[in-house]
Amino acid sequence: MRDISIIGIGQTPVGEHWKRSLRDLGTEAVLAALEDARVKRPDALYVGNMLSGQLSRQENLGALIADYAGLRGTEALKIEAACASGAAALRMAYVAVAGGVHDVVMACGVEKMTDTLSDETTTGLVSAADAIYEGEQGLSFVALNALLMQRYMYEFGYQREDFAGFAINAHRNAVNNPCAMFRKLISQEAFARTRMIAEPVSLLDSSGIADGAAAVVLASTEFAQAHGLLSVRIAASAVATDSVALHDRDDPLVLQAARDSAQRAYAQAGLGPDDIDFFELHDAFTIMAALSLEAAGFASQGEGVRLALEDQISLQGRIPICTMGGLKARGHPVGATGLYQVVEATQQLRGQAGANQLQGCRVGMTQNIGGSGAVAVTHILERVE
Amino acid sequence: MRDISIIGIGQTPVGEHWKRSLRDLGTEAVLAALEDARVKRPDALYVGNMLSGQLSRQENLGALIADYAGLRGTEALKIEAACASGAAALRMAYVAVAGGVHDVVMACGVEKMTDTLSDETTTGLVSAADAIYEGEQGLSFVALNALLMQRYMYEFGYQREDFAGFAINAHRNAVNNPCAMFRKLISQEAFARTRMIAEPVSLLDSSGIADGAAAVVLASTEFAQAHGLLSVRIAASAVATDSVALHDRDDPLVLQAARDSAQRAYAQAGLGPDDIDFFELHDAFTIMAALSLEAAGFASQGEGVRLALEDQISLQGRIPICTMGGLKARGHPVGATGLYQVVEATQQLRGQAGANQLQGCRVGMTQNIGGSGAVAVTHILERVE
Repeated sequence: MRDISIIGIGQTPVGEHWKRSLRDLGTEAVLAALEDARVKRPDALYVGNMLSGQLSRQENLGALIADYAGLRGTEALKIEAACASGAAALRMAYVAVAGGVHDVVMACGVEKMTDTLSDETTTGLVSAADAIYEGEQGLSFVALNALLMQRYMYEFGYQREDFAGFAINAHRNAVNNPCAMFRKLISQEAFARTRMIAEPVSLLDSSGIADGAAAVVLASTEFAQAHGLLSVRIAASAVATDSVALHDRDDPLVLQAARDSAQRAYAQAGLGPDDIDFFELHDAFTIMAALSLEAAGFASQGEGVRLALEDQISLQGRIPICTMGGLKARGHPVGATGLYQVVEATQQLRGQAGANQLQGCRVGMTQNIGGSGAVAVTHILERVE
Repeated sequence: MRDISIIGIGQTPVGEHWKRSLRDLGTEAVLAALEDARVKRPDALYVGNMLSGQLSRQENLGALIADYAGLRGTEALKIEAACASGAAALRMAYVAVAGGVHDVVMACGVEKMTDTLSDETTTGLVSAADAIYEGEQGLSFVALNALLMQRYMYEFGYQREDFAGFAINAHRNAVNNPCAMFRKLISQEAFARTRMIAEPVSLLDSSGIADGAAAVVLASTEFAQAHGLLSVRIAASAVATDSVALHDRDDPLVLQAARDSAQRAYAQAGLGPDDIDFFELHDAFTIMAALSLEAAGFASQGEGVRLALEDQISLQGRIPICTMGGLKARGHPVGATGLYQVVEATQQLRGQAGANQLQGCRVGMTQNIGGSGAVAVTHILERVE
């Protein structure tokens, strides 16, 4: 198998783009990434998206975005893994180039969640859960995370305010990201008095519903070097799954898919948690940030929240997370999120992260989670010296 | 790249399975294919599906079906390309095994279109078209095909009765397929007097809305031979796209994506139309059968219908199509159809097609189309001697 690099990145601002459609957003990100890579026509385009059928009554998104981006004819398919759809599209692009089926492949994640044809965003999001055992029973996605957070607090003796650090850190980092949705600081006091969505999950524990698109171009590292392209190599790519329904798990506080995909990625890269300079994790809710840190080996069970309490997750901390705002403050256009994470990690490794630049970072990890931990896609990216 | 074979196949009967869910159907097909392949645990499962979000409020289908089939933990993602989702999942499985990222991978296509949580099947199907320029304007999928058929009749001087042969052939072949939905003969007279859906498309021009699932297991041909498994090699796998909206095409009567993907497949296999012993094409409507025969090089433009009029498409004809009933009579559970085509082609090449067995067939082609020609996925399968 070939060594693979990211040779181009593109993204739209995340926000409520009431005047822009799914295809507009996807096309903008694709064209930006192609320009960045100085590539005219990739061999294939894999589009990560979760909700286009339910919210925009639009499927066949691969063909649609390929056409609008001037790539009519190109192999193009949509990849879905709930909120992990973006990284899943990257996974498929990686598989196609690493194995030599294609030489240059794009992954684009796109989601349109506001001002849609069929404005049922909350109902749509529940389709990431088990439709029969969770969705039909009236559990929203916030409610599922509330169950997890409540149990975590009970088991390990935390208060809801202990999770504030995740939101504060995300907002602090978003201030300097021109593509972020919420570019303002929040305080511990604001977190304490914010309103409840589903107790103990508050507004400030939750990522924002948003529109946006992000894209990357992949090629062999050899191709990148031959063409003098800025290159960040993909040291590992791994997917793992778990039960979709929470009640079916041995321990709902263990994100087994996240743990398995991180372990597979570490094994592929020959690295461990100590080698990771920063971690773009899936902080759809603050509880997910805590559980992800534990699943990926940065904290033992029940200790993930401590990293936030001790401010080990900031840009100066032991394991910086959400370095450009994370899902919480950059925003969470679900099917696009996994590629925003990878675009931001690439910015860090290229030294293009502006005021949020991590000094001397060499290895970053991204982890995109679908459902309440049903599927996890982990990538390890490495600066090419 | 490695030479790849199909080492296992499985399918459920196609029909209105009011008492069975999406996950039940998918699991049955996956388990049947694994048993046929004598494989316990594949390295990955790619699930082809179009409508689970809209009709069953269920996404994350990769993880869900992996779990119910006893494969919790396995890499599992959903692949979508409208009605070509099934073959698109096979494409991704092919890419993963051919390139050596995985050794044994499954593709499963599944669709639940009747008795769903949200019973809006016609609205759901329109999402294969352009939501803004077609769907919102009130064009149903039947209407889009009616535009094509009307234009074809006008341009090339046919009557609607001239298309009868496609439906008659499909029903004749379905009689002997225990998994087919409509196992009864129809006559030229029945076709002539059947009711209109969207003139000139009648009930008997149209494939049936249905539930069903089909699955295949892929491995390297070397693996298949080392384990003494029945093996049908994949000589070619290709995807191409076109505009999603009909009005954007130079000539709406040319299925350019179908033509391009067939050409790529022929080039990869080093074969041409004359080498193909039978063709499982995408007869969602009789007009699509005619256009597919032309796009794949079996007839020149305006001559596709002639193959039906001259009965060249029967099991004894020059180019047998829909040998187990096709979309018309086996039924068309959209995201599963592409894998039904491949399962049936494998049965033919293994000599397991029962009363419909084509004598001495060696090479079969399958072509699965999404939207009104927006995406086409072509595979060429070959018997391993």
